[in-house]
Amino acid sequence: MEAEESSSRPVLLILHNGVIVTMDPQRRVFRNGAIVVDHDRIVAIGQSSDVLRDFSAVPHQIVDLRGQFLLPGFINTHVHTSQQLARGIADDVDLITWLHDRIWPYESNMTEEDSYISTLLCGIELIHSGVTCFAEAGGQHVSRMARAVEQLGLRACLTQSIMDAGEGLPASWGMRTTDDCIQSQKELYRKHHNTADGRIRIWLGIRQIMNSTDRLLIETRDAAKELETGIHMHVAEIPYENHFVTNTREAEHGTVTYLEKIEFLQNNLLAAHSVWVDDKEIGFLSKAGVKVSHCPAAAMRMLGFAPIKEMLGAEICVSLGTDGAPSNNRMSIVDEMYLASLINKGREVYLKGTTDPTALPAETILEMATINGAKSVLWDDEIGSLEIGKKADIVVVNPFSWPMVPVHDSISSLVYCMRSENIVSVMCNGRWIMKDQKILSVDEGEVISLAKRASSQLLKKAGIQIPSRMNFI
Amino acid sequence: MEAEESSSRPVLLILHNGVIVTMDPQRRVFRNGAIVVDHDRIVAIGQSSDVLRDFSAVPHQIVDLRGQFLLPGFINTHVHTSQQLARGIADDVDLITWLHDRIWPYESNMTEEDSYISTLLCGIELIHSGVTCFAEAGGQHVSRMARAVEQLGLRACLTQSIMDAGEGLPASWGMRTTDDCIQSQKELYRKHHNTADGRIRIWLGIRQIMNSTDRLLIETRDAAKELETGIHMHVAEIPYENHFVTNTREAEHGTVTYLEKIEFLQNNLLAAHSVWVDDKEIGFLSKAGVKVSHCPAAAMRMLGFAPIKEMLGAEICVSLGTDGAPSNNRMSIVDEMYLASLINKGREVYLKGTTDPTALPAETILEMATINGAKSVLWDDEIGSLEIGKKADIVVVNPFSWPMVPVHDSISSLVYCMRSENIVSVMCNGRWIMKDQKILSVDEGEVISLAKRASSQLLKKAGIQIPSRMNFI
Repeated sequence: MEAEESSSRPVLLILHNGVIVTMDPQRRVFRNGAIVVDHDRIVAIGQSSDVLRDFSAVPHQIVDLRGQFLLPGFINTHVHTSQQLARGIADDVDLITWLHDRIWPYESNMTEEDSYISTLLCGIELIHSGVTCFAEAGGQHVSRMARAVEQLGLRACLTQSIMDAGEGLPASWGMRTTDDCIQSQKELYRKHHNTADGRIRIWLGIRQIMNSTDRLLIETRDAAKELETGIHMHVAEIPYENHFVTNTREAEHGTVTYLEKIEFLQNNLLAAHSVWVDDKEIGFLSKAGVKVSHCPAAAMRMLGFAPIKEMLGAEICVSLGTDGAPSNNRMSIVDEMYLASLINKGREVYLKGTTDPTALPAETILEMATINGAKSVLWDDEIGSLEIGKKADIVVVNPFSWPMVPVHDSISSLVYCMRSENIVSVMCNGRWIMKDQKILSVDEGEVISLAKRASSQLLKKAGIQIPSRMNFI
Repeated sequence: MEAEESSSRPVLLILHNGVIVTMDPQRRVFRNGAIVVDHDRIVAIGQSSDVLRDFSAVPHQIVDLRGQFLLPGFINTHVHTSQQLARGIADDVDLITWLHDRIWPYESNMTEEDSYISTLLCGIELIHSGVTCFAEAGGQHVSRMARAVEQLGLRACLTQSIMDAGEGLPASWGMRTTDDCIQSQKELYRKHHNTADGRIRIWLGIRQIMNSTDRLLIETRDAAKELETGIHMHVAEIPYENHFVTNTREAEHGTVTYLEKIEFLQNNLLAAHSVWVDDKEIGFLSKAGVKVSHCPAAAMRMLGFAPIKEMLGAEICVSLGTDGAPSNNRMSIVDEMYLASLINKGREVYLKGTTDPTALPAETILEMATINGAKSVLWDDEIGSLEIGKKADIVVVNPFSWPMVPVHDSISSLVYCMRSENIVSVMCNGRWIMKDQKILSVDEGEVISLAKRASSQLLKKAGIQIPSRMNFI
């Protein structure tokens, strides 16, 4: 599965003559900039002429970017990598059919090998769309997921799918005890945390409040504190979730109100979606420093409009996620940037009677996909911007082809025009994992073949029937 | 500017071994189908084995599609080709700034040559996203637009931008008389209608009701009847438009109510956007057979949520448009299909309290981009589906690469997963205009160079200043 690195190179790599969008605290953009990479880290960044002069005497490999753009690698803060083989199995169906007849049978019939192949396939799509780091939303087979991430060359916060309560789950899953849930995650942590040259971290998972006992919530919070890691949880996805919480637990409004009450909200919590939250709950999230992953495509298709403008206004760190392939079905942060802009401009119609084309401007969207993403995965000391001392997670964008020409406003062009066609090369941890749109870390063709076979076998095994549209003959 | 056709070929072309999504009245999809093209027309379609047998004795060129998908060319029913050079000049600004400080100065300073280059650049993007026919929303220099369309090899309904009233327009435009508006269009009709092997048709334009006298509306209606052509008009774009109509003309609700009253609504009217229409007005549009162009991206960014589900329910023919580059900024019907699905599913939140993932299913979206598009441009006798006797306007889609794998539901995969990366070849009027993602009809590199130069000169001339985002150094 592993492809060879195409060349060994001198220690220092200089990329010069590019437009460098640093996303550093001053939001500097070098019109003609250079960046120097030493192994896995950035050791210099500045004007091309200065950098070339300073490093002329040191042995180095040099790449002329010919005016292309350099950006920090994008961070996808909510993705179900094990659902990639399920793309298209649940389109245009209601939520109950989606979950009970399609997704649960799919997930509960997955083998470890399926999960491995699914993560590889998903990783290929992530790399093509400029992602260097992702937060897994929670899958069954984390060890094989970790193996795939190691091979892909990506950076990831991996999480097990954790449930110790709830009705109607597939019988084959059985019901896990709270102790088992916590122990198995601690074991994964010991086994995989900080492996793959430090690219893999293990987080704790809570699938969602309807599948969690209070004890699981509290012990997860405490375990995360003990292990100094994060918690990834689906929060306030649908109105029914809030009704359920209000009816079964003592809480005025819904999930966020209840989580506040039991002191679960902490600054290491990554709350995915967070669509159905009111102003008071936005206050709770803000005060606790909770991070929110906004998944625009999934929100429009399945959940609703999250109050992103209000959350940003309350200084909540909001980042972007794709969610899983059966909810989206494009797994591209590039498309999510475009969607986040459009949807949040359009959502204003219902607040003010007209859209607000000034809402969530391009620079905010770009922050969500980079530095806010890094903060959301608790890794902004090392990624999310191009700065000296940070890891070399870098995307090269070609703005000279038809999707982007003409470029009159570089930053908005990156958000509103750029497509995955424009992403030419991707570096993670100082290593090129895609160059000239060719994935270097794994064999793309082989993964696609494996994925086709595995996914059709899995659907057969799970007994998933997809009704035919139109008149196939 | 023109590139040569790469090869001359025998009269008959057989494309076989493909999944053929015909969009014919029975919505047949051939799992292993073939299609035979004679000059500009489809002369046979069916199972590969049958077709190969029937045509074995006739000299032909043959192409093995190796399981790729064939679709009718997509039809973009609302696009400002002359605004392509203005991509990115008006992002994240309010509507007044957008119009007065950016778009009007841009449009009023355009030369004929700018319009020509802009249409060429736009055409390249349209072809890459599988479009074979478009309806121009209205530009200044239609003759040069026509020249570009002729060279691109596309099919188009071209329209002049027509206004005989309204305040605040750029002085350099002057105010045209109603007679001049009608006469100049009749002249364009005589000069260009049915030219370029029948690929170009001339339509009549009405920019919007706020820039039209009643006399212009009525005479345009009558001229369209006389010439047997269509009318392209922006309708009910923003709440202000309806208020303006209610205040200045005698009409209860707004534009559509007024147009009904003066008997302007006819089945040859293509109403772009139609966002702010009520149930009664949906009834008027339906009864008159008016066609609606839904532009999801522009709607979300600038206008609001159009009641598309209700319009389709009232049997209005709704198709898809990209609008212009400064409103979108991706000019891709492929992306609009994805957006139309997401946005109209999400819009249900405000009607019912939850999204409706079953709204506008994939087969409906695909109809909007093909056969409904053809009906909208009054050309469904010749395009919009793959049927014997129709023109050979065809898109070849590769479903085997990372954006689409795995394909469990072919039709939904085409709508929700397909990206322009998957569009490999495009034929219009029996001629390949793109093959293996290389545009054959014009020199893409040369157009991009011309466009860069022309657009930066035009912005300078128009005095358009775009404030810098971030800290450029």
